[in-house]
Amino acid sequence: MRQAILAVLGLFILTVWSQIPPPETYYYEQKLDHFNPQDTRTFKEKYLVCSEYWKQGGPIFFYSGNEGEIESFYYNTGFMFDIAPQYYGSSLPFGDDSFTPENLRYLTIELAVADYAQFLTDWKSANHAEKNAVVVFGGSYGGILAAACRIHKYKYKYNLYFQKIFIYIYIFSNIQNPLVFFNLVTNDYNEVNAQCPEIVRQGYAEMISLAAGGQYNVITDVFQLCSPVQNEYDVTYLQLWARNAFLTMAMVDYPYSANFMGSLPAWPVNVSCDILLNYQGYPMQALANAAGMYYNASANNTLECFNITAEFIECADQTGCGLGNDAIAWDYQMCTEIVYGQDTNNVTDMFPPRIWELQNLTEYCQPKYGVTPEPSWMQIHGTVCIFLIFCSLVYFIFVCVIGGGYLTPPGPDDMPTVIIPSGAHHLDLRESNVADPPDVTAARATETQYISSWLEEYQNSLADGYVMSAFQPVRIWGRTVKQT
Amino acid sequence: MRQAILAVLGLFILTVWSQIPPPETYYYEQKLDHFNPQDTRTFKEKYLVCSEYWKQGGPIFFYSGNEGEIESFYYNTGFMFDIAPQYYGSSLPFGDDSFTPENLRYLTIELAVADYAQFLTDWKSANHAEKNAVVVFGGSYGGILAAACRIHKYKYKYNLYFQKIFIYIYIFSNIQNPLVFFNLVTNDYNEVNAQCPEIVRQGYAEMISLAAGGQYNVITDVFQLCSPVQNEYDVTYLQLWARNAFLTMAMVDYPYSANFMGSLPAWPVNVSCDILLNYQGYPMQALANAAGMYYNASANNTLECFNITAEFIECADQTGCGLGNDAIAWDYQMCTEIVYGQDTNNVTDMFPPRIWELQNLTEYCQPKYGVTPEPSWMQIHGTVCIFLIFCSLVYFIFVCVIGGGYLTPPGPDDMPTVIIPSGAHHLDLRESNVADPPDVTAARATETQYISSWLEEYQNSLADGYVMSAFQPVRIWGRTVKQT
Repeated sequence: MRQAILAVLGLFILTVWSQIPPPETYYYEQKLDHFNPQDTRTFKEKYLVCSEYWKQGGPIFFYSGNEGEIESFYYNTGFMFDIAPQYYGSSLPFGDDSFTPENLRYLTIELAVADYAQFLTDWKSANHAEKNAVVVFGGSYGGILAAACRIHKYKYKYNLYFQKIFIYIYIFSNIQNPLVFFNLVTNDYNEVNAQCPEIVRQGYAEMISLAAGGQYNVITDVFQLCSPVQNEYDVTYLQLWARNAFLTMAMVDYPYSANFMGSLPAWPVNVSCDILLNYQGYPMQALANAAGMYYNASANNTLECFNITAEFIECADQTGCGLGNDAIAWDYQMCTEIVYGQDTNNVTDMFPPRIWELQNLTEYCQPKYGVTPEPSWMQIHGTVCIFLIFCSLVYFIFVCVIGGGYLTPPGPDDMPTVIIPSGAHHLDLRESNVADPPDVTAARATETQYISSWLEEYQNSLADGYVMSAFQPVRIWGRTVKQT
Repeated sequence: MRQAILAVLGLFILTVWSQIPPPETYYYEQKLDHFNPQDTRTFKEKYLVCSEYWKQGGPIFFYSGNEGEIESFYYNTGFMFDIAPQYYGSSLPFGDDSFTPENLRYLTIELAVADYAQFLTDWKSANHAEKNAVVVFGGSYGGILAAACRIHKYKYKYNLYFQKIFIYIYIFSNIQNPLVFFNLVTNDYNEVNAQCPEIVRQGYAEMISLAAGGQYNVITDVFQLCSPVQNEYDVTYLQLWARNAFLTMAMVDYPYSANFMGSLPAWPVNVSCDILLNYQGYPMQALANAAGMYYNASANNTLECFNITAEFIECADQTGCGLGNDAIAWDYQMCTEIVYGQDTNNVTDMFPPRIWELQNLTEYCQPKYGVTPEPSWMQIHGTVCIFLIFCSLVYFIFVCVIGGGYLTPPGPDDMPTVIIPSGAHHLDLRESNVADPPDVTAARATETQYISSWLEEYQNSLADGYVMSAFQPVRIWGRTVKQT
């Protein structure tokens, strides 16, 4: 491993965001199980390095990867240092066999975070960067991992900045509000035009009515399906396929055309809302065209018909698991550590009523992976349950910024909250764009200020003769024993 | 499980210490592996309950057990609530088969602490004590576990008080000072009479000289051994047997006769020092009599000869592993998570030179358990390495008291240190005794004050409408999303 790390002072972040250099690709020989000294197996964990802005003694910006190939997140987060968590993208502990229930056993947040600690220790040592500050970035699952670094016992060993944690929080083993996610999706459409959610509701109603009358061929034609829907199961699958299009567009409602979770036009919520309004008198057609726009755009507008079982995979996470092996890994995590319910009721949201809570999850997960989802696990042993924040994905985006090298007593003052009304999933993590709304630009400046102040504090702590964090022990507590 | 928990206000501690009621014994059906959702195996974890001082809504005093049967620690710590960590005493995950290398795989600090979190959650729920404060006590290995509760991600879920952490600290993978432990033992004897360490040195020199001349029978006779020493290996074993007597007496140098790690007279260091002085002209005889006093007292003075291989087991921990299965469990932990070196050099201590560092440990642990001791593990993943305190066992006793429900920025002010010059291993955790030196009594009063103030703070936080800790989520951070 050669010395090839990008590190810049926090102040330069905005500059860097506007010019992402291509990364160098490496593989780290990672331990499979850090918590079993008898298990010495390893696997190759992929990581990307951008060394263009490296400065001797400067901070290391560490982006903790997400549930997919890291290259996509590298280019869609505008950051400079990227590592793929185990089981996603090319970091497969057992190669192509990684997704059997037995081999999925090592897919946990705890081990993913331990991987990062092991990697950073070795990397810093090999690159004579032991005292360099580490700032950890992450959004979505990557944000959970970044937060876990911070909340976990590794807190003294990282400086981190995390954002957009989107955990639904349990209080006393109950899901706070399983309706909230799809309510927020619906709100996004409502904000553009109050008619849009109404047309979606009517479109679903028309589909359900046609299905009840056995007119499956009409549905097949209107939705331009490659294979006809033939029964109730198929129609439900089609409903979820369409819902997945709306929720994804709400999540990645960027002010410019982007290629992230699908290739989409600028402001896809507005674009799909316009389509709905254009077909106002034909609600199912409107629904089909709006949802179809998303899937067709994701395929560079080359589709002649829609193959819904290839384009969308039903899974434990009602907000989507993605496709391919990544979808299996995420599905397993939703059955084990990240357990929450997601309902629709057609009243606070625009989708057909559907309950997806613990019982449904259990019936789904047990035969598939031999595991029983246990919400109390996260309460008792989890790393993220203490955050009583619902950082919404789509309407309000809460960017949760927490302090530097140590955890201060919890309270609103200790965890400044940056509200980005025009936000979208990962938007402030993306490189800057002339189309960015002013509140997004302002949020990045605020975040940059926080990071700069942490780095300054860290440099001061070095000057004071002790190292505040970054794998060095924290300041001496108590006294050392007098040795005679 | 019935409602049978002892809880008193911290203010009453001293009263309770002077009258330990016998405990009730229970077994909790504990998960074997909290971090593998596919593993649903359980084992019976033993715990003791003292309900005599239970007060509705009052705090739960939780003593986190040690490397031995909990009854012994129950009566020797004067506290009211005791649970045995996995693999020690009667909490055997695989019954009599628990000590094969394969089955020892689940013996880790992480799982022991997760056990406590799981147990306390269930226990509090079953006993309608969800909002009761929990104060965790521990000394020695129990103190490590108590500290791990606090340092670990469980910090928000416990209030804890820990003390006498006796970890040797690694800095940059090096052992801080492997000579310090036996130096402190020697100092204890030096404090009583500077002649005593000198006589021990001479006694060892005489033994080594006799062995070099092949006069094993003289050694056998003087030490009153049941089986004769016959070679160099036997003589080294005898040296370690004697060293173990001196180090144990230094650790449990209590001001009154006690039955803990051997049944001993009051001030055993003074008593054994007197024996050494009485046989000043015959140093090996002096050494034999002083060490023999310890082993004979531990057997209620019934021994006719010494069976050194039954009375002392050489193991990975040069400060002793105990006897029986407990010794195997502790041995394994010294080969895995708690790795440190312990040397003697006959200059800063009174024992024959002996190096016991990473290489020796590795050669010892690999064939025995198939594990390679890895000091960097504790640095990277460990729960206790951040404490830059060497809380000495024998000379100065540092009682490390840390704050209430949350971790404040680290610094001397945040972790008051109580120094007990007359301290001994676990002494301030023991029930009060008229023979206690004033500094020990004063230390207990200070500790009681801290605990009382935490409990007061906790009660205030309840009154303020949020629960500070004890398995409840911490105060709301940030804002909750506005739902329309």
